[in-house]
Amino acid sequence: MSTSTTVGPDRQHTGASPEALGIGMRLSIHPHCDDFVQVILGALQDARTTGLDEGLVVETDEVSTYVGARTAPAEARLLRYAAGVVAAAHRRSGGGHVVAHVLLSRGCPGEVSCDLGAVGLPPAYPIEVPATGVHAVAQWSLYPLLDGDSGGGSHMAHIEGAIAAARARGTAVAPAHYATKLTGDLSDVLATAGDAWLRVGTEVPHVVSHLTVSVGSPTRREEGSR
Amino acid sequence: MSTSTTVGPDRQHTGASPEALGIGMRLSIHPHCDDFVQVILGALQDARTTGLDEGLVVETDEVSTYVGARTAPAEARLLRYAAGVVAAAHRRSGGGHVVAHVLLSRGCPGEVSCDLGAVGLPPAYPIEVPATGVHAVAQWSLYPLLDGDSGGGSHMAHIEGAIAAARARGTAVAPAHYATKLTGDLSDVLATAGDAWLRVGTEVPHVVSHLTVSVGSPTRREEGSR
Repeated sequence: MSTSTTVGPDRQHTGASPEALGIGMRLSIHPHCDDFVQVILGALQDARTTGLDEGLVVETDEVSTYVGARTAPAEARLLRYAAGVVAAAHRRSGGGHVVAHVLLSRGCPGEVSCDLGAVGLPPAYPIEVPATGVHAVAQWSLYPLLDGDSGGGSHMAHIEGAIAAARARGTAVAPAHYATKLTGDLSDVLATAGDAWLRVGTEVPHVVSHLTVSVGSPTRREEGSR
Repeated sequence: MSTSTTVGPDRQHTGASPEALGIGMRLSIHPHCDDFVQVILGALQDARTTGLDEGLVVETDEVSTYVGARTAPAEARLLRYAAGVVAAAHRRSGGGHVVAHVLLSRGCPGEVSCDLGAVGLPPAYPIEVPATGVHAVAQWSLYPLLDGDSGGGSHMAHIEGAIAAARARGTAVAPAHYATKLTGDLSDVLATAGDAWLRVGTEVPHVVSHLTVSVGSPTRREEGSR
Protein backbone atom coordinates (compact mmCIF):
# COMPACT_ATOMS: atom_id res chain seq x y z
CA MET A 1 0.00 0.00 0.00
CA SER A 2 1.03 3.61 -0.24
CA THR A 3 3.44 5.58 1.82
CA SER A 4 3.62 8.23 -0.89
CA THR A 5 4.19 11.87 -0.24
CA THR A 6 1.76 14.55 -1.32
CA VAL A 7 2.25 15.45 -4.95
CA GLY A 8 1.80 19.06 -5.99
CA PRO A 9 0.07 20.26 -9.14
CA ASP A 10 3.47 20.91 -10.73
CA ARG A 11 4.20 17.19 -10.73
CA GLN A 12 4.03 15.75 -14.25
CA HIS A 13 1.33 13.14 -14.81
CA THR A 14 2.88 10.30 -16.73
CA GLY A 15 -0.36 8.65 -17.79
CA ALA A 16 -0.66 5.86 -15.28
CA SER A 17 -3.69 3.64 -15.92
CA PRO A 18 -6.78 3.73 -13.67
CA GLU A 19 -5.75 0.27 -12.47
CA ALA A 20 -2.27 1.48 -11.50
CA LEU A 21 -3.89 4.40 -9.68
CA GLY A 22 -6.15 1.96 -7.83
CA ILE A 23 -9.35 3.75 -8.87
CA GLY A 24 -12.41 1.80 -7.82
CA MET A 25 -15.29 1.47 -5.41
CA ARG A 26 -17.19 -0.89 -3.18
CA LEU A 27 -20.95 -0.73 -3.53
CA SER A 28 -23.58 -2.37 -1.35
CA ILE A 29 -27.28 -2.15 -2.17
CA HIS A 30 -29.93 -2.61 0.48
CA PRO A 31 -33.51 -2.94 -0.78
CA HIS A 32 -35.74 -2.96 2.30
CA CYS A 33 -38.07 -5.68 1.05
CA ASP A 34 -38.59 -9.43 1.31
CA ASP A 35 -37.46 -10.09 -2.28
CA PHE A 36 -34.15 -8.24 -1.85
CA VAL A 37 -32.11 -10.97 -3.54
CA GLN A 38 -34.08 -10.67 -6.79
CA VAL A 39 -33.93 -6.88 -6.63
CA ILE A 40 -30.14 -6.77 -6.11
CA LEU A 41 -29.33 -9.41 -8.74
CA GLY A 42 -31.78 -7.80 -11.18
CA ALA A 43 -30.26 -4.35 -10.70
CA LEU A 44 -26.75 -5.69 -11.32
CA GLN A 45 -28.06 -7.46 -14.43
CA ASP A 46 -29.70 -4.22 -15.63
CA ALA A 47 -26.34 -2.49 -15.39
CA ARG A 48 -24.77 -5.17 -17.57
CA THR A 49 -27.62 -5.11 -20.08
CA THR A 50 -27.34 -1.34 -20.51
CA GLY A 51 -23.54 -1.46 -20.81
CA LEU A 52 -22.84 0.48 -17.63
CA ASP A 53 -20.11 -2.03 -16.77
CA GLU A 54 -18.03 -1.10 -19.82
CA GLY A 55 -14.43 -0.48 -18.78
CA LEU A 56 -15.09 -1.84 -15.30
CA VAL A 57 -14.32 -5.05 -13.42
CA VAL A 58 -17.28 -6.10 -11.25
CA GLU A 59 -16.93 -8.71 -8.49
CA THR A 60 -19.75 -9.38 -6.00
CA ASP A 61 -19.02 -11.07 -2.68
CA GLU A 62 -21.24 -11.79 0.33
CA VAL A 63 -20.98 -8.24 1.73
CA SER A 64 -20.63 -5.87 -1.24
CA THR A 65 -19.63 -5.47 -4.87
CA TYR A 66 -16.13 -4.37 -5.87
CA VAL A 67 -16.02 -2.28 -9.03
CA GLY A 68 -12.58 -1.51 -10.42
CA ALA A 69 -12.02 1.02 -13.20
CA ARG A 70 -9.84 -0.05 -16.09
CA THR A 71 -10.32 2.63 -18.77
CA ALA A 72 -10.91 6.40 -18.82
CA PRO A 73 -13.00 8.24 -17.78
CA ALA A 74 -12.46 5.99 -14.77
CA GLU A 75 -14.20 8.01 -12.07
CA ALA A 76 -17.19 8.92 -14.24
CA ARG A 77 -17.71 5.24 -15.17
CA LEU A 78 -17.86 4.31 -11.47
CA LEU A 79 -20.37 6.99 -10.51
CA ARG A 80 -22.57 6.25 -13.54
CA TYR A 81 -22.53 2.58 -12.62
CA ALA A 82 -23.53 3.35 -9.02
CA ALA A 83 -26.34 5.66 -10.15
CA GLY A 84 -27.63 3.07 -12.61
CA VAL A 85 -27.63 0.20 -10.11
CA VAL A 86 -29.32 2.19 -7.33
CA ALA A 87 -31.96 3.59 -9.71
CA ALA A 88 -32.60 0.08 -11.07
CA ALA A 89 -32.97 -1.36 -7.56
CA HIS A 90 -35.40 1.43 -6.68
CA ARG A 91 -37.42 0.73 -9.84
CA ARG A 92 -37.36 -3.06 -9.34
CA SER A 93 -38.59 -2.69 -5.75
CA GLY A 94 -41.61 -0.76 -6.98
CA GLY A 95 -40.25 2.62 -5.90
CA GLY A 96 -39.46 1.24 -2.47
CA HIS A 97 -36.84 2.19 0.07
CA VAL A 98 -33.31 1.38 -1.07
CA VAL A 99 -30.12 2.42 0.68
CA ALA A 100 -26.73 2.11 -0.96
CA HIS A 101 -23.38 2.39 0.66
CA VAL A 102 -20.63 3.60 -1.65
CA LEU A 103 -16.89 3.57 -0.88
CA LEU A 104 -14.83 5.41 -3.51
CA SER A 105 -11.08 4.84 -3.33
CA ARG A 106 -7.99 5.80 -5.25
CA GLY A 107 -4.35 5.33 -4.44
CA CYS A 108 -4.23 1.96 -2.78
CA PRO A 109 -5.53 -1.07 -4.71
CA GLY A 110 -6.02 -3.76 -2.11
CA GLU A 111 -2.99 -4.48 -0.02
CA VAL A 112 -0.48 -4.14 -2.83
CA SER A 113 2.42 -1.74 -2.44
CA CYS A 114 2.06 1.34 -4.59
CA ASP A 115 4.09 4.53 -4.77
CA LEU A 116 1.93 6.99 -6.65
CA GLY A 117 4.41 9.78 -6.14
CA ALA A 118 6.48 8.08 -8.84
CA VAL A 119 3.83 8.14 -11.55
CA GLY A 120 2.25 11.56 -10.99
CA LEU A 121 -1.41 12.30 -10.44
CA PRO A 122 -3.94 12.88 -13.22
CA PRO A 123 -5.92 16.10 -13.67
CA ALA A 124 -9.56 16.54 -12.62
CA TYR A 125 -12.52 16.79 -15.05
CA PRO A 126 -16.24 17.34 -14.40
CA ILE A 127 -17.98 14.04 -13.71
CA GLU A 128 -21.22 13.83 -15.67
CA VAL A 129 -23.88 11.34 -14.61
CA PRO A 130 -27.18 11.21 -16.55
CA ALA A 131 -30.19 12.33 -14.50
CA THR A 132 -32.16 9.45 -12.98
CA GLY A 133 -35.37 11.18 -11.91
CA VAL A 134 -34.86 9.57 -8.50
CA HIS A 135 -34.56 11.92 -5.52
CA ALA A 136 -31.79 10.97 -3.08
CA VAL A 137 -30.61 12.00 0.38
CA ALA A 138 -27.07 11.10 1.36
CA GLN A 139 -24.56 11.44 4.16
CA TRP A 140 -21.15 11.99 2.66
CA SER A 141 -17.63 11.87 4.10
CA LEU A 142 -14.26 12.50 2.43
CA TYR A 143 -10.89 11.27 3.71
CA PRO A 144 -7.64 12.69 2.26
CA LEU A 145 -5.03 10.25 3.62
CA LEU A 146 -1.90 12.32 4.06
CA ASP A 147 1.28 11.17 5.70
CA GLY A 148 2.78 13.18 8.54
CA ASP A 149 5.93 13.91 6.58
CA SER A 150 4.37 14.64 3.20
CA GLY A 151 5.47 18.25 3.21
CA GLY A 152 2.46 20.34 4.17
CA GLY A 153 -1.23 20.38 3.66
CA SER A 154 -4.11 20.03 6.11
CA HIS A 155 -6.59 17.21 5.65
CA MET A 156 -9.35 19.49 6.94
CA ALA A 157 -8.53 22.16 4.35
CA HIS A 158 -9.20 19.63 1.60
CA ILE A 159 -12.47 18.55 3.26
CA GLU A 160 -13.65 22.13 3.81
CA GLY A 161 -12.88 23.01 0.19
CA ALA A 162 -14.93 20.06 -1.01
CA ILE A 163 -17.89 21.00 1.20
CA ALA A 164 -17.74 24.60 -0.06
CA ALA A 165 -17.86 23.36 -3.66
CA ALA A 166 -20.85 21.13 -2.87
CA ARG A 167 -22.65 24.05 -1.22
CA ALA A 168 -22.03 26.21 -4.28
CA ARG A 169 -23.43 23.43 -6.44
CA GLY A 170 -26.55 23.25 -4.29
CA THR A 171 -26.35 19.59 -3.27
CA ALA A 172 -24.82 20.13 0.18
CA VAL A 173 -27.63 21.32 2.39
CA ALA A 174 -26.49 20.78 5.97
CA PRO A 175 -23.62 19.53 8.09
CA ALA A 176 -24.19 16.48 10.26
CA HIS A 177 -21.91 14.83 12.76
CA TYR A 178 -19.06 13.23 10.75
CA ALA A 179 -20.79 13.80 7.41
CA THR A 180 -22.38 16.35 5.11
CA LYS A 181 -25.98 15.92 4.03
CA LEU A 182 -26.44 15.97 0.25
CA THR A 183 -29.80 16.06 -1.53
CA GLY A 184 -30.92 16.18 -5.15
CA ASP A 185 -31.28 13.85 -8.09
CA LEU A 186 -29.35 10.65 -7.35
CA SER A 187 -27.04 11.50 -10.26
CA ASP A 188 -26.17 14.92 -8.86
CA VAL A 189 -25.58 13.60 -5.34
CA LEU A 190 -23.18 10.95 -6.63
CA ALA A 191 -21.44 13.35 -9.03
CA THR A 192 -20.87 15.80 -6.15
CA ALA A 193 -18.99 13.15 -4.20
CA GLY A 194 -17.16 11.99 -7.31
CA ASP A 195 -16.00 15.48 -8.26
CA ALA A 196 -14.64 16.14 -4.76
CA TRP A 197 -12.86 12.78 -4.65
CA LEU A 198 -11.28 13.40 -8.05
CA ARG A 199 -10.28 16.98 -7.25
CA VAL A 200 -8.55 16.06 -3.99
CA GLY A 201 -6.92 13.20 -5.88
CA THR A 202 -5.00 15.71 -8.00
CA GLU A 203 -3.04 16.65 -4.87
CA VAL A 204 -3.27 13.69 -2.49
CA PRO A 205 -2.50 10.20 -3.83
CA HIS A 206 -4.66 8.19 -1.41
CA VAL A 207 -8.21 9.57 -1.07
CA VAL A 208 -11.31 7.70 0.08
CA SER A 209 -14.92 8.85 0.22
CA HIS A 210 -17.96 7.17 1.76
CA LEU A 211 -21.62 7.85 1.04
CA THR A 212 -24.75 6.38 2.54
CA VAL A 213 -27.40 7.12 -0.09
CA SER A 214 -31.12 6.75 0.62
CA VAL A 215 -33.93 6.73 -1.96
CA GLY A 216 -37.65 6.11 -1.42
CA SER A 217 -37.39 6.65 2.33
CA PRO A 218 -40.75 6.40 4.16
CA THR A 219 -39.56 9.20 6.47
CA ARG A 220 -39.32 11.46 3.47
CA ARG A 221 -42.67 10.31 2.07
CA GLU A 222 -44.37 10.96 5.41
CA GLU A 223 -42.93 14.47 5.48
CA GLY A 224 -44.52 15.03 2.08
CA SER A 225 -41.33 16.66 0.90
CA ARG A 226 -41.30 14.55 -2.20
CA MET B 1 -12.34 21.35 12.76
CA SER B 2 -8.92 20.01 13.51
CA THR B 3 -5.60 20.99 12.09
CA SER B 4 -3.87 19.36 15.05
CA THR B 5 -0.44 17.83 14.90
CA THR B 6 0.17 14.20 15.76
CA VAL B 7 0.51 13.75 19.48
CA GLY B 8 3.00 11.20 20.76
CA PRO B 9 2.44 8.88 23.71
CA ASP B 10 4.56 11.17 25.89
CA ARG B 11 1.92 13.88 25.61
CA GLN B 12 0.05 14.30 28.87
CA HIS B 13 -3.67 13.50 28.69
CA THR B 14 -5.49 16.19 30.60
CA GLY B 15 -8.76 14.35 30.93
CA ALA B 16 -10.82 15.89 28.13
CA SER B 17 -14.37 14.55 28.05
CA PRO B 18 -15.57 12.15 25.34
CA GLU B 19 -17.68 15.02 24.00
CA ALA B 20 -14.63 17.32 23.76
CA LEU B 21 -12.79 14.52 21.97
CA GLY B 22 -15.71 14.17 19.54
CA ILE B 23 -16.13 10.44 20.19
CA GLY B 24 -19.21 9.08 18.47
CA MET B 25 -20.63 7.09 15.59
CA ARG B 26 -23.22 7.05 12.87
CA LEU B 27 -25.16 3.80 12.59
CA SER B 28 -27.56 2.73 9.87
CA ILE B 29 -29.52 -0.52 10.08
CA HIS B 30 -30.87 -2.21 6.97
CA PRO B 31 -33.28 -5.10 7.56
CA HIS B 32 -33.97 -6.67 4.17
CA CYS B 33 -37.67 -7.20 4.77
CA ASP B 34 -41.00 -5.53 4.07
CA ASP B 35 -41.55 -4.54 7.72
CA PHE B 36 -38.17 -2.81 8.02
CA VAL B 37 -39.64 0.24 9.78
CA GLN B 38 -40.97 -1.83 12.67
CA VAL B 39 -37.73 -3.81 12.89
CA ILE B 40 -35.54 -0.68 13.03
CA LEU B 41 -37.71 1.21 15.50
CA GLY B 42 -38.11 -1.92 17.63
CA ALA B 43 -34.36 -2.54 17.73
CA LEU B 44 -33.67 1.05 18.81
CA GLN B 45 -36.37 0.67 21.47
CA ASP B 46 -34.79 -2.59 22.67
CA ALA B 47 -31.50 -0.74 23.16
CA ARG B 48 -33.26 1.84 25.32
CA THR B 49 -35.15 -0.78 27.31
CA THR B 50 -31.96 -2.67 28.13
CA GLY B 51 -30.06 0.51 29.05
CA LEU B 52 -27.54 0.30 26.22
CA ASP B 53 -28.01 4.04 25.60
CA GLU B 54 -26.64 4.96 29.04
CA GLY B 55 -24.02 7.69 28.69
CA LEU B 56 -24.93 8.19 25.02
CA VAL B 57 -26.85 10.80 23.03
CA VAL B 58 -28.93 9.12 20.29
CA GLU B 59 -30.44 11.10 17.40
CA THR B 60 -32.08 9.37 14.43
CA ASP B 61 -32.54 11.22 11.12
CA GLU B 62 -33.80 10.05 7.74
CA VAL B 63 -30.49 8.42 6.74
CA SER B 64 -28.86 7.14 9.92
CA THR B 65 -28.59 7.41 13.69
CA TYR B 66 -25.98 9.60 15.37
CA VAL B 67 -24.72 8.25 18.67
CA GLY B 68 -22.47 10.54 20.70
CA ALA B 69 -20.55 9.36 23.73
CA ARG B 70 -20.75 11.49 26.86
CA THR B 71 -19.25 9.36 29.65
CA ALA B 72 -16.46 6.79 29.93
CA PRO B 73 -15.87 4.14 28.74
CA ALA B 74 -16.95 6.08 25.66
CA GLU B 75 -15.76 3.77 22.89
CA ALA B 76 -16.98 0.59 24.61
CA ARG B 77 -20.44 2.11 25.10
CA LEU B 78 -20.67 2.85 21.37
CA LEU B 79 -19.65 -0.63 20.24
CA ARG B 80 -21.94 -2.32 22.78
CA TYR B 81 -24.82 -0.16 21.55
CA ALA B 82 -24.10 -1.09 17.91
CA ALA B 83 -23.89 -4.80 18.76
CA GLY B 84 -27.13 -4.64 20.72
CA VAL B 85 -29.08 -2.82 18.01
CA VAL B 86 -27.87 -5.09 15.18
CA ALA B 87 -28.54 -8.26 17.20
CA ALA B 88 -32.02 -6.96 18.11
CA ALA B 89 -32.81 -6.15 14.46
CA HIS B 90 -31.65 -9.63 13.45
CA ARG B 91 -33.86 -11.20 16.14
CA ARG B 92 -36.86 -8.99 15.32
CA SER B 93 -36.61 -9.89 11.63
CA GLY B 94 -36.85 -13.57 12.50
CA GLY B 95 -33.13 -14.22 11.97
CA GLY B 96 -33.29 -12.48 8.62
CA HIS B 97 -30.67 -10.63 6.64
CA VAL B 98 -29.63 -7.37 8.28
CA VAL B 99 -26.77 -5.15 7.20
CA ALA B 100 -25.48 -2.32 9.35
CA HIS B 101 -23.18 0.45 8.35
CA VAL B 102 -21.09 1.84 11.19
CA LEU B 103 -18.98 5.01 11.06
CA LEU B 104 -16.80 5.46 14.15
CA SER B 105 -15.24 8.90 14.55
CA ARG B 106 -13.09 10.75 17.04
CA GLY B 107 -11.36 14.08 16.83
CA CYS B 108 -13.78 16.24 14.89
CA PRO B 109 -17.29 16.65 16.27
CA GLY B 110 -19.38 17.98 13.42
CA GLU B 111 -18.00 21.10 11.83
CA VAL B 112 -16.82 22.67 15.06
CA SER B 113 -13.22 23.79 15.33
CA CYS B 114 -11.20 21.57 17.64
CA ASP B 115 -7.52 21.45 18.45
CA LEU B 116 -7.00 18.14 20.17
CA GLY B 117 -3.28 18.66 20.37
CA ALA B 118 -3.99 21.10 23.18
CA VAL B 119 -5.86 18.65 25.41
CA GLY B 120 -3.79 15.50 24.93
CA LEU B 121 -5.05 12.11 23.83
CA PRO B 122 -6.41 9.45 26.18
CA PRO B 123 -4.88 5.98 26.58
CA ALA B 124 -6.30 2.82 24.99
CA TYR B 125 -8.07 0.03 26.89
CA PRO B 126 -9.53 -3.30 25.70
CA ILE B 127 -13.07 -2.85 24.42
CA GLU B 128 -15.31 -5.59 25.78
CA VAL B 129 -18.62 -6.30 24.06
CA PRO B 130 -20.81 -9.15 25.41
CA ALA B 131 -21.15 -12.08 22.98
CA THR B 132 -24.34 -11.96 20.90
CA GLY B 133 -24.45 -15.49 19.45
CA VAL B 134 -24.94 -13.86 16.05
CA HIS B 135 -22.34 -14.64 13.39
CA ALA B 136 -21.22 -11.61 11.37
CA VAL B 137 -19.16 -10.89 8.28
CA ALA B 138 -17.84 -7.37 7.83
CA GLN B 139 -15.74 -5.23 5.53
CA TRP B 140 -13.70 -2.85 7.64
CA SER B 141 -11.67 0.26 6.80
CA LEU B 142 -9.63 2.54 9.07
CA TYR B 143 -8.61 6.12 8.27
CA PRO B 144 -5.95 7.89 10.37
CA LEU B 145 -6.33 11.52 9.25
CA LEU B 146 -2.87 12.99 9.53
CA ASP B 147 -1.84 16.42 8.35
CA GLY B 148 1.11 16.80 6.00
CA ASP B 149 3.09 18.81 8.53
CA SER B 150 2.28 16.81 11.64
CA GLY B 151 5.87 15.73 12.15
CA GLY B 152 6.14 12.18 10.88
CA GLY B 153 4.10 9.03 10.75
CA SER B 154 2.68 7.08 7.85
CA HIS B 155 -1.07 6.55 7.63
CA MET B 156 -0.45 3.13 6.10
CA ALA B 157 1.77 2.08 9.01
CA HIS B 158 -1.16 2.68 11.37
CA ILE B 159 -3.52 0.73 9.09
CA GLU B 160 -1.11 -2.17 8.68
CA GLY B 161 -0.57 -2.35 12.44
CA ALA B 162 -4.31 -2.53 12.99
CA ILE B 163 -4.73 -5.29 10.42
CA ALA B 164 -1.90 -7.28 12.01
CA ALA B 165 -3.60 -7.01 15.41
CA ALA B 166 -6.91 -8.16 13.92
CA ARG B 167 -5.19 -11.11 12.26
CA ALA B 168 -3.58 -12.10 15.56
CA ARG B 169 -7.00 -11.91 17.21
CA GLY B 170 -8.44 -14.20 14.55
CA THR B 171 -11.20 -11.92 13.26
CA ALA B 172 -9.36 -10.63 10.17
CA VAL B 173 -9.51 -13.41 7.65
CA ALA B 174 -8.74 -11.85 4.29
CA PRO B 175 -7.87 -8.60 2.57
CA ALA B 176 -10.35 -7.18 0.08
CA HIS B 177 -10.07 -4.14 -2.15
CA TYR B 178 -10.19 -1.08 0.16
CA ALA B 179 -11.20 -3.13 3.19
CA THR B 180 -10.35 -6.07 5.41
CA LYS B 181 -12.82 -8.91 5.84
CA LEU B 182 -13.65 -9.66 9.46
CA THR B 183 -15.68 -12.64 10.67
CA GLY B 184 -16.80 -13.96 14.03
CA ASP B 185 -19.41 -13.23 16.65
CA LEU B 186 -20.89 -9.79 15.95
CA SER B 187 -19.44 -8.61 19.28
CA ASP B 188 -15.91 -9.68 18.38
CA VAL B 189 -16.10 -8.14 14.89
CA LEU B 190 -17.21 -4.80 16.32
CA ALA B 191 -14.69 -4.90 19.19
CA THR B 192 -11.88 -5.54 16.68
CA ALA B 193 -12.74 -2.33 14.84
CA GLY B 194 -13.24 -0.45 18.10
CA ASP B 195 -9.89 -1.52 19.54
CA ALA B 196 -8.03 -0.45 16.39
CA TRP B 197 -9.83 2.89 16.27
CA LEU B 198 -9.05 3.55 19.93
CA ARG B 199 -5.40 2.49 19.65
CA VAL B 200 -4.68 4.71 16.64
CA GLY B 201 -6.51 7.47 18.52
CA THR B 202 -3.75 7.48 21.15
CA GLU B 203 -1.40 8.85 18.49
CA VAL B 204 -3.57 10.52 15.84
CA PRO B 205 -6.27 12.98 16.97
CA HIS B 206 -8.67 12.52 14.05
CA VAL B 207 -9.40 8.85 13.26
CA VAL B 208 -12.42 7.44 11.43
CA SER B 209 -13.36 3.82 10.80
CA HIS B 210 -16.13 2.38 8.63
CA LEU B 211 -17.66 -1.09 8.77
CA THR B 212 -20.29 -2.73 6.64
CA VAL B 213 -21.55 -5.58 8.84
CA SER B 214 -23.72 -8.38 7.48
CA VAL B 215 -25.69 -10.92 9.53
CA GLY B 216 -28.11 -13.60 8.32
CA SER B 217 -26.90 -13.36 4.72
CA PRO B 218 -28.59 -15.83 2.35
CA THR B 219 -25.26 -16.19 0.52
CA ARG B 220 -23.76 -17.53 3.71
CA ARG B 221 -26.73 -19.78 4.43
CA GLU B 222 -26.56 -21.28 0.93
CA GLU B 223 -22.88 -22.04 1.45
CA GLY B 224 -23.85 -23.99 4.56
CA SER B 225 -21.02 -22.32 6.43
CA ARG B 226 -23.30 -21.39 9.27
